[in-house]
Amino acid sequence: MKQSKPIGERKIIEIIQKNLAPMPQVPIPFGDDVSAYEISKDKLAILKTDMLVDKTDVPPHMTHWQAARKAIVMNVSDFAAKGVKPLAILVSLGLPRNITAKDIEDIGKGLNAGAREYDTYVIGGDTGEASDTVISLSVFGIAENGRVMLRSGARPGDLVAVTGLFGKAPAGLKILLGEYEATGKTRETLVKSVLMPQARLKEGLALGHTKAVTASIDSSDGLAWSLHEIARASNVGFLVESLPIAEEAREFAETNKVDLPKLVLHGGEEYELILTINPKLWNRAREAIGEIGGSLFAIGKVTAEKRILLKTPEGKRVIEPKGWEHFKSDPTR
Amino acid sequence: MKQSKPIGERKIIEIIQKNLAPMPQVPIPFGDDVSAYEISKDKLAILKTDMLVDKTDVPPHMTHWQAARKAIVMNVSDFAAKGVKPLAILVSLGLPRNITAKDIEDIGKGLNAGAREYDTYVIGGDTGEASDTVISLSVFGIAENGRVMLRSGARPGDLVAVTGLFGKAPAGLKILLGEYEATGKTRETLVKSVLMPQARLKEGLALGHTKAVTASIDSSDGLAWSLHEIARASNVGFLVESLPIAEEAREFAETNKVDLPKLVLHGGEEYELILTINPKLWNRAREAIGEIGGSLFAIGKVTAEKRILLKTPEGKRVIEPKGWEHFKSDPTR
Repeated sequence: MKQSKPIGERKIIEIIQKNLAPMPQVPIPFGDDVSAYEISKDKLAILKTDMLVDKTDVPPHMTHWQAARKAIVMNVSDFAAKGVKPLAILVSLGLPRNITAKDIEDIGKGLNAGAREYDTYVIGGDTGEASDTVISLSVFGIAENGRVMLRSGARPGDLVAVTGLFGKAPAGLKILLGEYEATGKTRETLVKSVLMPQARLKEGLALGHTKAVTASIDSSDGLAWSLHEIARASNVGFLVESLPIAEEAREFAETNKVDLPKLVLHGGEEYELILTINPKLWNRAREAIGEIGGSLFAIGKVTAEKRILLKTPEGKRVIEPKGWEHFKSDPTR
Repeated sequence: MKQSKPIGERKIIEIIQKNLAPMPQVPIPFGDDVSAYEISKDKLAILKTDMLVDKTDVPPHMTHWQAARKAIVMNVSDFAAKGVKPLAILVSLGLPRNITAKDIEDIGKGLNAGAREYDTYVIGGDTGEASDTVISLSVFGIAENGRVMLRSGARPGDLVAVTGLFGKAPAGLKILLGEYEATGKTRETLVKSVLMPQARLKEGLALGHTKAVTASIDSSDGLAWSLHEIARASNVGFLVESLPIAEEAREFAETNKVDLPKLVLHGGEEYELILTINPKLWNRAREAIGEIGGSLFAIGKVTAEKRILLKTPEGKRVIEPKGWEHFKSDPTR
């Protein structure tokens, strides 16, 4: 019996997890951005795997080089969110039969460029045939036990902050899909945010040393969805007092008559960090970010009430747990 | 320009590797069965990723449960060949849109069954959409520095041994593909060797403690191909004096008029270990294998002459570097 409606990602993970025997005393719970294995009393091995599939993760006009680099960014971003330095990367490649030597070379160069950008190396891997181009990476790092920034530590009263402004990547994607338009420098910035995403590794590592962060996640599934993930893991709610809107996204939304809060909240493919911060250590966090030349935008606070609300001139409204809709479902493709 | 002929796996790996900056002082060279990162002077993190794609790795009549378990076996087998215990596994799943909840459940159960069989756990992962069912695993373990059994240590005069007899899986595959026949207990054994492969983890771990092994590889690409891999990495040759032929394979070859040496040498999907052993420590290796209830079959010796030869009643003949031909290219599919 075929499903008429695809099973969602979260449901799939839930089914798989229900059938897995849990490892005793696992240091990081199933479902956080990374996994961990206790090497010694003090040290954790940090492990992460994430797969880029061209059909769903590679927008039109993205080159093989950019796609391979993006696969690295996707994985490094999760390490960034946990405050852990990626030390070594393995790649498992699924390639279609008709791929050219030039495309493979571009994939190799893109992987290397991404790895070196974050001061790490691709040290091994494997390849096989697939219908899609599949770049599955696994990343290894080492962390001090008890010092990884999890999703689960947010407490009412904590401040909520992000490392950058939102809306550029979803706008850029709409442009690449040919649905909407922008010109000049704005177009360039929006499109670049999709084709050349950046992981906030410097920011994550700097914050990891401050002990100011109580919970952290990367925003690759969208701002709204990621807030819901922290809320669920930490058993709290949020009041978002000001949306972190990128100027180019505002401009794009005005020109194209697109709902701006929706673009910012329910976009995706953005690799900022979303952090909850102990208010007593806010200055320490800001200083640490300042020292490495990064940004930290306060957007609201953690609440005991388990709802996720946005403050608007018309009063508070609920932020739905709607995430990133893969562009594969886009009718223009 | 499309390629008329697909680029081979080894060529793909060569192109990728050529474009990767090498990590300084990497403890295990690129291209061995696993990769490694030096955690401390004494300890290595051992890392492995390998991808199962239904289109090329899952024969007809293999269930989702069996395919997921096989993905574990494929990866554990490489750890076995290096004498390293797998400690934790991550899974990255690519799933087609129309997959059912029942299929996903079977994949979860199969992953868990495989992991528990080898005394390890699946501790995390991720999922996304793909055209094929893709099960990409990454495995983590810890080894003592300098104690991993590599491909590169074989020396002329060493004995060559395998942990089991060959030919069953390629015969079983031909049966599953509907090309050839067998009956009763023989059919059952041959088919089972494909659907329920076993990794020789106990054997690999036992041998790892003996220091008797000078080089080691798993035989998943076929006996001939794997011998060529060791020869290349160790800069030696082989004289195979007796082929390790499984009785059921012999029976199958006779009934179906199939070339038996070809079945045994150029099959594949067999997860035995191929080992070169210091002749002075041969008894120690045999005892270690005996203690865990395993087998060790001597099949020949390492030679300084860099050819790979098979002794036959008609004299020596060259064993070609022909490997496992993926059944996807089989005209019956």
